[in-house]
Amino acid sequence: MSIIARRGIRYMPILNTAKVSAALLEKGQSRVIDASLTLIRERAKLKGELVRALGGAKATSTLLGVPLGHNSSFLQGPAFAPPRIREAIWCGSTNSTTEEGKELQDARVLTDVGDVPIQEIRDCGVDDHRLMNVIGESVKLVMDEDPLCPLVLGGDHSISFPVIRAVSEKLGGPVDVLHLDAHPDNYDAFEGNIYSHASSFARVMEGDYVRRLLQVGIRSITAEGRAQAKKFGVEQYEMRTFSRDRHFLENLKLGEGAKGVYISIDVDCLDPAFAPGVSHIEPGGLSFRDVLNILHNLQGDVVAGDVVELNPQRDTVDGMTAMVAAKLVRELAAKISK
Amino acid sequence: MSIIARRGIRYMPILNTAKVSAALLEKGQSRVIDASLTLIRERAKLKGELVRALGGAKATSTLLGVPLGHNSSFLQGPAFAPPRIREAIWCGSTNSTTEEGKELQDARVLTDVGDVPIQEIRDCGVDDHRLMNVIGESVKLVMDEDPLCPLVLGGDHSISFPVIRAVSEKLGGPVDVLHLDAHPDNYDAFEGNIYSHASSFARVMEGDYVRRLLQVGIRSITAEGRAQAKKFGVEQYEMRTFSRDRHFLENLKLGEGAKGVYISIDVDCLDPAFAPGVSHIEPGGLSFRDVLNILHNLQGDVVAGDVVELNPQRDTVDGMTAMVAAKLVRELAAKISK
Amino acid sequence: MSIIARRGIRYMPILNTAKVSAALLEKGQSRVIDASLTLIRERAKLKGELVRALGGAKATSTLLGVPLGHNSSFLQGPAFAPPRIREAIWCGSTNSTTEEGKELQDARVLTDVGDVPIQEIRDCGVDDHRLMNVIGESVKLVMDEDPLCPLVLGGDHSISFPVIRAVSEKLGGPVDVLHLDAHPDNYDAFEGNIYSHASSFARVMEGDYVRRLLQVGIRSITAEGRAQAKKFGVEQYEMRTFSRDRHFLENLKLGEGAKGVYISIDVDCLDPAFAPGVSHIEPGGLSFRDVLNILHNLQGDVVAGDVVELNPQRDTVDGMTAMVAAKLVRELAAKISK
Amino acid sequence: MSIIARRGIRYMPILNTAKVSAALLEKGQSRVIDASLTLIRERAKLKGELVRALGGAKATSTLLGVPLGHNSSFLQGPAFAPPRIREAIWCGSTNSTTEEGKELQDARVLTDVGDVPIQEIRDCGVDDHRLMNVIGESVKLVMDEDPLCPLVLGGDHSISFPVIRAVSEKLGGPVDVLHLDAHPDNYDAFEGNIYSHASSFARVMEGDYVRRLLQVGIRSITAEGRAQAKKFGVEQYEMRTFSRDRHFLENLKLGEGAKGVYISIDVDCLDPAFAPGVSHIEPGGLSFRDVLNILHNLQGDVVAGDVVELNPQRDTVDGMTAMVAAKLVRELAAKISK
Amino acid sequence: MSIIARRGIRYMPILNTAKVSAALLEKGQSRVIDASLTLIRERAKLKGELVRALGGAKATSTLLGVPLGHNSSFLQGPAFAPPRIREAIWCGSTNSTTEEGKELQDARVLTDVGDVPIQEIRDCGVDDHRLMNVIGESVKLVMDEDPLCPLVLGGDHSISFPVIRAVSEKLGGPVDVLHLDAHPDNYDAFEGNIYSHASSFARVMEGDYVRRLLQVGIRSITAEGRAQAKKFGVEQYEMRTFSRDRHFLENLKLGEGAKGVYISIDVDCLDPAFAPGVSHIEPGGLSFRDVLNILHNLQGDVVAGDVVELNPQRDTVDGMTAMVAAKLVRELAAKISK
Amino acid sequence: MSIIARRGIRYMPILNTAKVSAALLEKGQSRVIDASLTLIRERAKLKGELVRALGGAKATSTLLGVPLGHNSSFLQGPAFAPPRIREAIWCGSTNSTTEEGKELQDARVLTDVGDVPIQEIRDCGVDDHRLMNVIGESVKLVMDEDPLCPLVLGGDHSISFPVIRAVSEKLGGPVDVLHLDAHPDNYDAFEGNIYSHASSFARVMEGDYVRRLLQVGIRSITAEGRAQAKKFGVEQYEMRTFSRDRHFLENLKLGEGAKGVYISIDVDCLDPAFAPGVSHIEPGGLSFRDVLNILHNLQGDVVAGDVVELNPQRDTVDGMTAMVAAKLVRELAAKISK
Repeated sequence: MSIIARRGIRYMPILNTAKVSAALLEKGQSRVIDASLTLIRERAKLKGELVRALGGAKATSTLLGVPLGHNSSFLQGPAFAPPRIREAIWCGSTNSTTEEGKELQDARVLTDVGDVPIQEIRDCGVDDHRLMNVIGESVKLVMDEDPLCPLVLGGDHSISFPVIRAVSEKLGGPVDVLHLDAHPDNYDAFEGNIYSHASSFARVMEGDYVRRLLQVGIRSITAEGRAQAKKFGVEQYEMRTFSRDRHFLENLKLGEGAKGVYISIDVDCLDPAFAPGVSHIEPGGLSFRDVLNILHNLQGDVVAGDVVELNPQRDTVDGMTAMVAAKLVRELAAKISK
Repeated sequence: MSIIARRGIRYMPILNTAKVSAALLEKGQSRVIDASLTLIRERAKLKGELVRALGGAKATSTLLGVPLGHNSSFLQGPAFAPPRIREAIWCGSTNSTTEEGKELQDARVLTDVGDVPIQEIRDCGVDDHRLMNVIGESVKLVMDEDPLCPLVLGGDHSISFPVIRAVSEKLGGPVDVLHLDAHPDNYDAFEGNIYSHASSFARVMEGDYVRRLLQVGIRSITAEGRAQAKKFGVEQYEMRTFSRDRHFLENLKLGEGAKGVYISIDVDCLDPAFAPGVSHIEPGGLSFRDVLNILHNLQGDVVAGDVVELNPQRDTVDGMTAMVAAKLVRELAAKISK
Repeated sequence: MSIIARRGIRYMPILNTAKVSAALLEKGQSRVIDASLTLIRERAKLKGELVRALGGAKATSTLLGVPLGHNSSFLQGPAFAPPRIREAIWCGSTNSTTEEGKELQDARVLTDVGDVPIQEIRDCGVDDHRLMNVIGESVKLVMDEDPLCPLVLGGDHSISFPVIRAVSEKLGGPVDVLHLDAHPDNYDAFEGNIYSHASSFARVMEGDYVRRLLQVGIRSITAEGRAQAKKFGVEQYEMRTFSRDRHFLENLKLGEGAKGVYISIDVDCLDPAFAPGVSHIEPGGLSFRDVLNILHNLQGDVVAGDVVELNPQRDTVDGMTAMVAAKLVRELAAKISK
Repeated sequence: MSIIARRGIRYMPILNTAKVSAALLEKGQSRVIDASLTLIRERAKLKGELVRALGGAKATSTLLGVPLGHNSSFLQGPAFAPPRIREAIWCGSTNSTTEEGKELQDARVLTDVGDVPIQEIRDCGVDDHRLMNVIGESVKLVMDEDPLCPLVLGGDHSISFPVIRAVSEKLGGPVDVLHLDAHPDNYDAFEGNIYSHASSFARVMEGDYVRRLLQVGIRSITAEGRAQAKKFGVEQYEMRTFSRDRHFLENLKLGEGAKGVYISIDVDCLDPAFAPGVSHIEPGGLSFRDVLNILHNLQGDVVAGDVVELNPQRDTVDGMTAMVAAKLVRELAAKISK
Repeated sequence: MSIIARRGIRYMPILNTAKVSAALLEKGQSRVIDASLTLIRERAKLKGELVRALGGAKATSTLLGVPLGHNSSFLQGPAFAPPRIREAIWCGSTNSTTEEGKELQDARVLTDVGDVPIQEIRDCGVDDHRLMNVIGESVKLVMDEDPLCPLVLGGDHSISFPVIRAVSEKLGGPVDVLHLDAHPDNYDAFEGNIYSHASSFARVMEGDYVRRLLQVGIRSITAEGRAQAKKFGVEQYEMRTFSRDRHFLENLKLGEGAKGVYISIDVDCLDPAFAPGVSHIEPGGLSFRDVLNILHNLQGDVVAGDVVELNPQRDTVDGMTAMVAAKLVRELAAKISK
Repeated sequence: MSIIARRGIRYMPILNTAKVSAALLEKGQSRVIDASLTLIRERAKLKGELVRALGGAKATSTLLGVPLGHNSSFLQGPAFAPPRIREAIWCGSTNSTTEEGKELQDARVLTDVGDVPIQEIRDCGVDDHRLMNVIGESVKLVMDEDPLCPLVLGGDHSISFPVIRAVSEKLGGPVDVLHLDAHPDNYDAFEGNIYSHASSFARVMEGDYVRRLLQVGIRSITAEGRAQAKKFGVEQYEMRTFSRDRHFLENLKLGEGAKGVYISIDVDCLDPAFAPGVSHIEPGGLSFRDVLNILHNLQGDVVAGDVVELNPQRDTVDGMTAMVAAKLVRELAAKISK
């Protein structure tokens, strides 16, 4: 239904017809990309200066929105998610304290550098390979500003690949990843797309970006999904055995000997009763409290993370799933910020 | 409900507490604003180059999104509108031809320079006075690139003030304005806010930006609204007498002796039966066909325009009002492009 | 679905089983009815005193809610309507001025005596005959307080019978009635119920309460509906011929030689496009502007009226039809108040 | 979203893999098709016998459902429409009389032979060419039973081709067709599909099945759509000029010298305000009353018709558009039955 | 609201009035029933042949839809369920593998013989006694084709009686039944209807069709419901004690010494949080994972089953409960197919 | 959105402008309040007489509605809740027996004295201090009639203060309170409002009305919320540790040595998956079964209670949360009635 994602592709044939020179186009695209990164750099710089002026923070969760939905296999609604999650974070129906007592109004706990202008860049005809690099560069620009740590708002799950890659490259070694999801997202490619949201964790494992990958909440998986996990040494915890695995998962210790822990939360790890506003309704998932129990009790240095796959076009009229995604962001921020 | 609009304000007290120097803040804000305008300039430049390479266009409708909702008096949902309108313009449920036969896939008819990063600028603590200037500057950057003509996607109606001001300043004189709306939006100030969406046409008339202002669709108006219209010489056509005025309004001739015609369409000019996704449900409005009849038959050189006040948070689940706003944009584009 | 309506009936068998004496029950019911009427009298008295203290009003529209839905043939949701209409009248999304300039915040234009406690009286086992009398008595209590004029908020259409009867009895003679509806509501009885919402205008015509009855918007009518109209001398204007009748209906002159004009607006006179929140979806109705044109141009002394059959359980999530009903109440109030 | 339509296609590769002999498959498919037609024949026979036993009818509208949605270009929901329309026809919220007084409970006015088992036939791997023939055969089985006249419930608009072809073949010559729609549906083929719902009227015109084709409500049309109309001599009435054409269209006289009049109503001829439950939201359409005015005033012998493109998956929760489609069926039945 | 169910009844008085001879009617009805069964036989035959040609299957889950809703005590929406469940089974948002790895695209695992034409048969005036026999005959026609095993898609719960009876008769002895439901459905009769969806398990127990009946999820039960359970030796597991019974229920062993296990899943066994699209909202039910745990761990030869009481008219706009019902069907198919 | 709550305040300036004497106003208000209490007294008297006539009851749950929403910090929808809860209690989709077998149709188990006319009293300009007293007086009028025990239907949570105060005063000593809620509601004042729904339990603890206060379900709490709990000796059970606390909470023994147990259930104690129709979406809450387990197993003499904060304006279209609130009322009634 959403064809925002295809606008870039639509643009290219027009240009070809016009016999626009490749050089002209390439130059224009580069200027737009440079300007986009400059804008993110300046916002990160300002926020970094302010947090440092406030003083005392060792790690500050920093929101970075990536409104990208075109690598979804089914619906593109996650492109609309970042502004909705932000609205829900500050919604007047709740206070600004996390469950364990962190104050989110304190800029040292949570700050925001806005969105990567994904749709505009694609509309200039930029392809996915380059777009993924722009996302990675944006993450690094945030990390350039001590003590900002990226907390990325998706977008579909394809964005976790460039984000994790950038985090690992910036930190100089692999991280441990806790991945909460109904799906393993480890197809070699999905319908020919190596950047598909169903393939991001295949990409991540091929590089040297991740040491241990734990997948929790899995309940939609094919033979290929299990074979890939075996190949890459992924630790998969399926919902079929959750009652047996619960104790282990609620007492995780991760990141020692690695560069830290990265947490990637696909909202559809939750049962659709708790999170109806997702593209892939897959009954039998985690409860919201299950996720918080895993998160709150995790031991390890969480250095970055993402919350992805909220689809506002499938949410209830009052945005219940946006509130759910926002609370995941809030509690994850509390885990990152020190 | 939406408090995105208040995030900028929230940020300021934190900064003051931190005793961040005004100079540091001012410098950072300026850098962010400069980077934002550079990004818009580069996108406009690329699109301008491409249209000129295609050749033959004298005027090309150019979408510029302004996701601003905080100057609304009731709900802030219009901040989420621009990406939804874009999605609906290219929705697979309809073709790409306008009613009178213009092909929108032709970049000489319709192009797009993306959104002004409103929320990010406000989140840096920039006030409304400066923000309005950024919007105006963005409009001028589009007009710098011949033959691009701005077709602005709101946002709430407060944005029409800086847009019309910029168009007039750029063209070097006043324009005629056809303003379709349930409300006159001409309060001197609304609840103390001179930039309110209920005051934009008071601001516009105070400058020398407009020669004739015709307001059509009016059905929610106070004594002040009528007094202000009289003071500024506004020609108001209320719905109460629409059956009498219809013939005149379906045969308008505007813009001669002025710098052209500007058309501002508030989606709530339509009866809520036709456009339920608005903040201000005001029964008794125009039918969609009424609006098209006025638009199609208008004689005059339409140089720019806007479509504002779509509120996606009040739309039907299938986005009927987004489709309505998109068709208004499409038909308005056909009117502008030559 | 709603069985509020049947609670009274449910109560009776229990009482019979308990062999509660008829005298005890009758006495208790009478005390509850007396207390209910006392409460309405006191509220009317206070509002009357205040309006008279403000001075200068000859007729003040006075809201009286009648949350009764059990005489509907299909759904009982109109029992929930009065508080929703009140909320919509004062909704922050619109101002407090009517289309022709009356200020509703002026208590001399619009005041409110609250609801008749219909559900509580029925829950005491009071039957419909007596309940209809309570409604009529309540209307008279409002009219006792000069210059208050009843503007009744339904409830289903069955309430128009006791209201019109009371108005006529109080004024000492028949009134002319303008009745806007998709249905004639003149069955002799519907499924055996003489107080059915489909029979109220048969009841009204049998008494000497009405001189002329004009029915406008009719598009769901059986052979009996046409025969009854003929028998009672009703002037029926069906939608089939509305384009032909429009001029006549937009220039009505009523009430001369009668005790004034009563206007009864069933929200389903509107096409469901304009008013989806009704129990009986009957396509092909009036537009909202059609109704206002008829109302605004009517000449005659409007002494009372009702707006009925809003069903909040069928309304859109944002309450569009409640806004529609509220605007009908507002414009009708402007017509009554002098 | 709906992939019911693709089940047949999905089935074939499985069969090929299994090396099932073509003869076996063909034989099974033929048996299923024969049994399907036998079932429709028996139902038509029983209903015909009953209507004849009742006596006095010259033409009886006979519902035949065709739950086919896979030839839609965008959504497949119309496959779910026939049972929803039937439910709405007999919904307790309205009576059983048409606007001009025909009694639908009289089996001589309206009878029903149920649905063609489209999904089951496709699931056996039957292709569209053969499926279209099954639809046509079913129509003829209805017409075999004097005085039954087919009133077909779609399904998407692709079904009008086999239906009109069957009607014309059965009557022995071309009919005049009144076609109410937002789109001309006359592409030569759409995305390669010659049976597309966007191509049915190209198919119809290529045969000798239609003498005059009038298209009313058109507002989404490409250059090809206009060229095809010219080629086939179609009389197109676009919404752009409806206010000018209204008088003509509300006084049509058709069918003389032809074998009668066929009326095909695509629900999206209506503005989406009146009919939101359609796949293709195209603002600026007819009002419900506009359609009834055209229908009621049409002079000519209406021999058959269809109501298509209701999409229950896009309807309001209370099924407003199902009620709209049902009333179109009811009024069309009144036009056919004599 | 739905009165599809009453169309058959409506038809009968018309026929009586027409003095149609009973013989004529009876003959017509028999012909229609015969043709209906022939159609099901042919579809089953074709599917059976194909599965056998593929080879290697001992038991193949075979969908048989029964779109019957008129025996519900409250709403009739389940009549619309079978096509919605089928759509959801093949929905592009999920893959075609069950949780434990069975491939549903393999016709040996899952095949489909379509729907019994319930509404058409009823519309010919056939009564419930005979209709129940048609359902039973249809089930037997499926079982005639080795290795097809019926997996019935309701419809309301009244259909479980004829289905279980047919399965038992065909297998030649009683089966064990696992019945997941919020209600015991064992009233002797409900409002006089012995075929009510609230009485099906009383009917089932009166015959000799069932050895052990386990009811799980019960939380809406009257004194009669408990008395009937006692009388028939039903093993009831109420939600009140589920935390205590969980271990037992997640380790069931059934069917030994009987002709196998039949599983009947009423979607309302789930808490409405997990399955809002049901007629009877009864909070406090099972989670989706609870049901899967019971199902996956059950030991025994599951020979047939049903999934009933999905009400699409109460589902969320995106059909979440249809996805839930579809996953129950998928996992149940995996349990049946060998 | 709802400004019903502000109507009283709106009224006052009008009166002041009119220079209405304070004495006149005060006298009118007192008369209205007296009449309101008389009405409640008479209804309680009648219901008390009937229950006593039936004989044998020691405690009868007696519904008292308090449609008050203006003390909410975010939305005012709870003002519309009482009639919706009553409708759901008697909804035809469920029977009238509680889970443990009490028959609610027996007036000795459940009776109803209707609503306190909150909106009408406020509309007369009565302030909150006096309004709270009216609520308390109404509760006492119920308790005057042996064996009636108040089961209050909110309304927002601000009403628990006057209700608990009245219960304690009437019983002559403090009660134990079991408070199920996502929030502690113990701010000293919220935005300056000491009667805020976020402050009711601070008010309750300041008096001597409560001995032990247990708060269960807490997951949105600030530093002040924890400090206040400490100050007042509140026993807080946060969701963070629910899996640890579950055994204790499912085996509570309360009220010994106090005047009995009062249970206050804020519907938002439930996770929004189970109860979406609330103003404050706070993920991570109790399941419905968790609440029932706590309630069913509680030992102690429950003397009164309330169910509050249902917001019908946020409920699903089918009123799922109203059903949830109604079942809470039903099971709580079973706990109170003896």
